[in-house]
Amino acid sequence: MTRNFIQMLEAKWAEGKFVCVGLDPDLERISADLRERDGDAGAVKAFCHQIVESTQDLVCAYKPNIAFFQAIGFMGMETLQETVAEIRRIAPDVPVILDAKVADIGNTNLGYVKMAFEYVEADAITVHPYLGQEAMQPFLDQKDKGIIVLCRTSNPGAGEFQDLVQRDDRPLYKHIAERVSQHWNANGNCCLVAGATYPEELGEIRKIVGDMPLLIPGVGKQGGDVAAVVKAAGGKRMIINSSSGIIFAEDPRQATRELNKQIDLARA
Amino acid sequence: MTRNFIQMLEAKWAEGKFVCVGLDPDLERISADLRERDGDAGAVKAFCHQIVESTQDLVCAYKPNIAFFQAIGFMGMETLQETVAEIRRIAPDVPVILDAKVADIGNTNLGYVKMAFEYVEADAITVHPYLGQEAMQPFLDQKDKGIIVLCRTSNPGAGEFQDLVQRDDRPLYKHIAERVSQHWNANGNCCLVAGATYPEELGEIRKIVGDMPLLIPGVGKQGGDVAAVVKAAGGKRMIINSSSGIIFAEDPRQATRELNKQIDLARA
Repeated sequence: MTRNFIQMLEAKWAEGKFVCVGLDPDLERISADLRERDGDAGAVKAFCHQIVESTQDLVCAYKPNIAFFQAIGFMGMETLQETVAEIRRIAPDVPVILDAKVADIGNTNLGYVKMAFEYVEADAITVHPYLGQEAMQPFLDQKDKGIIVLCRTSNPGAGEFQDLVQRDDRPLYKHIAERVSQHWNANGNCCLVAGATYPEELGEIRKIVGDMPLLIPGVGKQGGDVAAVVKAAGGKRMIINSSSGIIFAEDPRQATRELNKQIDLARA
Repeated sequence: MTRNFIQMLEAKWAEGKFVCVGLDPDLERISADLRERDGDAGAVKAFCHQIVESTQDLVCAYKPNIAFFQAIGFMGMETLQETVAEIRRIAPDVPVILDAKVADIGNTNLGYVKMAFEYVEADAITVHPYLGQEAMQPFLDQKDKGIIVLCRTSNPGAGEFQDLVQRDDRPLYKHIAERVSQHWNANGNCCLVAGATYPEELGEIRKIVGDMPLLIPGVGKQGGDVAAVVKAAGGKRMIINSSSGIIFAEDPRQATRELNKQIDLARA
């Protein structure tokens, strides 16, 4: 059976699941005992395994961030590959988003496509919009894979360029939302990143893109307000990501349940 | 002795060297015999070794692109690390630019910093501007490392967002050139990417950023005109990159000499 990212998401949404767990296995925050026992790569793998085991029936997606795996050194990519394989074994119906924020020109992107979808075997990848659709075609051509384009990011300084007002009086991020939804999405596989820390902008993006799935980081530690976010996103087609708020919680399962409950309340 | 990217470049420029060789070891284009003999990782390493051996006295920098290494699979990052180590052994005074086009928010970037500068031991890295200075601070804080920001890329579709006209009638790429040169560059370690395929825009960028080094891809196979590019860049502080035009040439040394000659002529 073909894994299709959007269909897998839709199945999870139908079960009322909107939480994505961001796997950011920061070595500095993983217990020293575990690192001593298993080495850095082993500790990261064991850490992620534990999180997935304890949350797999509660989530709509997992989102490992490649930077934390690359920080391990030469074992990093193998650890990432094994972590994704583990997710697919434990939770075969939960799609995996590789948070890699890549984007190069033309054929170079084929290297990233190969890495993400053949080697790591993720179901979706995050990408930067700056090089334009023509450059990103090797990603967009992957019909069953989600291509998640940064639109409005959750960081405090996101507005430096994303809010730059264009000649038509609209900020840059709205142009990106429009281009991606109207031109990049011929295969129906595009999604956009809209940070939870900017619910107003998120609402503007929802208006522009209609039913396009939104990956929404920034709840939890970054301070995004769940109720405001769910309302702005129209209560649907949301991938609400929490990373450290769940994975470094005392009880990750409990933290996931808690976030689910907040989302349910806001959708009611 | 500390390796400082800008100082290393300046030493090479003082010798009249402006060519950067882009190491894009595309497996599809590396001889099948070599792959059979050494395996994919071994073939990539041997291929890059050969290029570096034959060009090391002619260039101002090497630029391995991480996508081609990641395409190898789990040996990719180790192969990249070994390739950079090999460059540092063969050509200890030639700086290495890791073409990774990364950018994430805040602390996540520390993972990329660790990968690029501690593990791979590159002297510079390419990054996307979209998340803004606040997000990119972990890179900008690396005083001895070059932080090379995409401004105007060389691909045919670059203009989709980069040329979007702002309320002040200037295209987006000029805003990025201005912000990076006037605000991001407190440590004097920033550079900008300006594609050779757009000499007019390159000239506009040079006017805005003054002496900031420009990484100029797109000569050779992509069709950038060397004379026009050198003129637009003011004949100085240029890192003129050729990848497949050199590395897949019948005689890479001869191709590098040829490009050097064209640059010399244009600067005369």
